[in-house]
Amino acid sequence: MALGLSFSGGKDSALAALLADPFFDVTLVTATFGVTDAAENARVAAERLGFPHETIEIDRAVAEAAVERMVDDGYPRNGIQRAHEATLEAVAEAGFDAVGDGTRRDDRAPTVSQSLAQSLEDRHGVQYVAPLAGYGRATIDALAGDLLRIETGASERLAKGDYEHELRAVLADEYGEDAIDDIFPEHVQSVVRGRRE
Amino acid sequence: MALGLSFSGGKDSALAALLADPFFDVTLVTATFGVTDAAENARVAAERLGFPHETIEIDRAVAEAAVERMVDDGYPRNGIQRAHEATLEAVAEAGFDAVGDGTRRDDRAPTVSQSLAQSLEDRHGVQYVAPLAGYGRATIDALAGDLLRIETGASERLAKGDYEHELRAVLADEYGEDAIDDIFPEHVQSVVRGRRE
Repeated sequence: MALGLSFSGGKDSALAALLADPFFDVTLVTATFGVTDAAENARVAAERLGFPHETIEIDRAVAEAAVERMVDDGYPRNGIQRAHEATLEAVAEAGFDAVGDGTRRDDRAPTVSQSLAQSLEDRHGVQYVAPLAGYGRATIDALAGDLLRIETGASERLAKGDYEHELRAVLADEYGEDAIDDIFPEHVQSVVRGRRE
Repeated sequence: MALGLSFSGGKDSALAALLADPFFDVTLVTATFGVTDAAENARVAAERLGFPHETIEIDRAVAEAAVERMVDDGYPRNGIQRAHEATLEAVAEAGFDAVGDGTRRDDRAPTVSQSLAQSLEDRHGVQYVAPLAGYGRATIDALAGDLLRIETGASERLAKGDYEHELRAVLADEYGEDAIDDIFPEHVQSVVRGRRE
């Protein structure tokens, strides 16, 4: 079964790919709003993991709407959710049998509810899969430690490949650099450097 | 990581075992209330799948309470949920690093909510994993068709290994044979015969 898995270059989506790998024909897919070249970082991470990689373009207007929502809310969760849903929709239209992502059991954003999963499946004629949905943080950290070489660091420093990097750029572009600190709390990101041997 | 996976001999728990197998040290664990020898069927299925198997005893009073709840309700869902939670508690106390089951994204009973999962983890110092939680019915049927040899048939005919078989026996014992038809709708079960080569 051909699985197009939304891939950020980070720990969770990389681990989702490894867990799916024995059972699906996995292609890693990174969405870009055309704002930065962040997707190039994801392509490099995908190559180091040994998976085929595709970049999929989403209209910049989606990023602008997501950022506007973040600014209105004063926090990023709902805007990130919008960007993630747009990504899943785009992957679902790309011709794979299944579309997936790295959402975890304990995730707060983005999340894919059962009704969103069913809606994606019904509207696009695909199957939605979330290989990490049955695993909590401790299990995922243990598996990732066993299977992946990971670099961690502050979000703004680390060259990750996902749409969050582009959302930050749109935010800075439209609301000024200070808006990033207002909306995104300082937190540690992870970037995958490869598999452990 | 040593994973004790609650195993019925049916399709879902067998597929959960296969999905976990590359990443965990899997032992299949079947609960018995000591009412029938159904767990022996699960042991045979586990052997054919090539996994180590353990049987774990749960007090018959748990089965009686579950059956009483079914009779009060007029449907089996809450009673099955009780029996399943008792099984997970017992596996969680058996010394594995992680306890798991074959619950699916679309399951109505049994289900393991995020709060139940967290509670199991906190109280027993284990990790709870549900390898199928991120997969819907269509995906699970496709994977099972690829990976497993399965026999399907009516519940009362097929010699499955899980606690439902014993709950039916307790129900018949305490409320008469007719109670089974009143409580359990006719439905098709699956029993695993082995892996596909």
